[in-house]
Amino acid sequence: MSDLPRHVDIHEEGPREGFQIEPGPISTERKIALIDALSETGLKRIQVASFVNPKRVPGWADAEAVVAGIHPHQGVRYTALWLNEKGLERAVALNGKLSLRGNISMCASEPFSRRNQNRGLEENVRVQHAQIGIFKANGIPVESISMMAAFGCNFAGEITPATVVATAAQGFDIAAAHDLTIKSLSLADTMAWATPESIKRVVGAVRERWPALRLNLHLHDTRGLGLANAYAGLEMGVASFDASVAGLGGCPFAGHKGAAGNVCTEDLAFMCEEMGIETGIDVEKLVAAAQLAEEIVGHPLPGSVMRGGTLAKYRKH
Amino acid sequence: MSDLPRHVDIHEEGPREGFQIEPGPISTERKIALIDALSETGLKRIQVASFVNPKRVPGWADAEAVVAGIHPHQGVRYTALWLNEKGLERAVALNGKLSLRGNISMCASEPFSRRNQNRGLEENVRVQHAQIGIFKANGIPVESISMMAAFGCNFAGEITPATVVATAAQGFDIAAAHDLTIKSLSLADTMAWATPESIKRVVGAVRERWPALRLNLHLHDTRGLGLANAYAGLEMGVASFDASVAGLGGCPFAGHKGAAGNVCTEDLAFMCEEMGIETGIDVEKLVAAAQLAEEIVGHPLPGSVMRGGTLAKYRKH
Repeated sequence: MSDLPRHVDIHEEGPREGFQIEPGPISTERKIALIDALSETGLKRIQVASFVNPKRVPGWADAEAVVAGIHPHQGVRYTALWLNEKGLERAVALNGKLSLRGNISMCASEPFSRRNQNRGLEENVRVQHAQIGIFKANGIPVESISMMAAFGCNFAGEITPATVVATAAQGFDIAAAHDLTIKSLSLADTMAWATPESIKRVVGAVRERWPALRLNLHLHDTRGLGLANAYAGLEMGVASFDASVAGLGGCPFAGHKGAAGNVCTEDLAFMCEEMGIETGIDVEKLVAAAQLAEEIVGHPLPGSVMRGGTLAKYRKH
Repeated sequence: MSDLPRHVDIHEEGPREGFQIEPGPISTERKIALIDALSETGLKRIQVASFVNPKRVPGWADAEAVVAGIHPHQGVRYTALWLNEKGLERAVALNGKLSLRGNISMCASEPFSRRNQNRGLEENVRVQHAQIGIFKANGIPVESISMMAAFGCNFAGEITPATVVATAAQGFDIAAAHDLTIKSLSLADTMAWATPESIKRVVGAVRERWPALRLNLHLHDTRGLGLANAYAGLEMGVASFDASVAGLGGCPFAGHKGAAGNVCTEDLAFMCEEMGIETGIDVEKLVAAAQLAEEIVGHPLPGSVMRGGTLAKYRKH
């Protein structure tokens, strides 16, 4: 009936997503407390900071102090985000405690790329070539391609599976020019256009072209379809997802303020575990971390299992 | 890949579910205003009142006045809930404006039936026989079986597909004893235990036994899986769902206060329409009704599309 994976990896992006968008201010200590709590849950990869312009994103002015303060947990990989060379420099200075990976960043929509990245897709190809040079110079491995707007775009409308495949192929061409071996492709539903059926169409088209490629989905829950879309991905054998504890972080592209952003980590982990798919995550601990996140930001967050509770206590009877 | 229906029917239960649980007080006029707004959305069936003990459910003390005040819309069937003979009498007095249907009410869990209905399953069979007599005496047709706790139970744990099939078979036996023809079976995830995979297992088992039977799903979103479960139902060809505008109504069986209840009507309709499944519903109008519901209850409700917006405005570009 379906091709569910036995195990999925969930990449936690809540601290980075959340603290950049929350009106705050949130103290460095509280940020560290949340990351340390997440480190105890069984998550294997946590994006802990954003090295961006502190004038534009004041919530991450203390990125260095947060990374310095966290207590790394054996087996957890701590990652960070940067948007330009200055940001990368700041991240590189902390490599060792951080575990940086480069990425070929593509976009399936020309108008979204112009608005969000301030460059067209052709220019983006040149930028990606240059980025790879910088990654190499800093000893940062590049093994993945990511793609924004892979399921639809507020400015370009529908994105076809053919466009996604063509955009990924461009990414592979860039990689090939630098003798890089790409192991994974991450497809982002940046503006929350995906449905379970479009997930299947796009993943199916990519799978057909690159059968051995590891796929990751970065899903937004802005219109409530986050977990349904994740389930469609699981049915297609997708075994890697980005998610955000408690649903931390909003969606800047939504029609109204207060819309949800990333799919919620503990809800996704709960769904997987209930279906017998291993996540390596202790969902109860993750729910406690989600409740801590809500306490830290001081307002309700979108997560459901943190309110509804897991089923563990009923099974003990 | 899947067996999606071309058209689904969504039964609106928000007014009944919501106004019984909201701390209120909510004026009769505001209740009527919401129902009238829902009548304009294309919904074909709206549960508009609950005829229950006003001492136990003060939010529905004005059930008669609400039914008297609504402006019926051509093609919309207005239904109501009752829990005993006294309630049925009150509903019958309004039949004509209401469009009452009887139902054989089963439960897949003995301990839940004892706690929730104050009777064991054997006694419930006797009660259902008696109920049918009352329905017949009042000229109310009985063409459906409903089943609570069909996917799991806080007091009994997992519910197997075999138990669901056996419970449905008991319902069919009751119907047969009264020469009733059952056209549909509604399976309720009363305590939010279902996952997309258990939806498929249970629906598959029922389908195998009664291939021509129309199935309805009553899903709760308490743990965030409501739409994922609905999608799994759609994949199995289920074409009828209960839902609640804006996610009105909570879940009394959740671990924590403030947990979501029924799956949200406009989110479900949005998902269906985006996948090309007709609902007959104008999602924009339904979003406006959801926003009205939130205004009426005076606090945030769980719906997502009412915050994230639909995609219509981006498609017009």
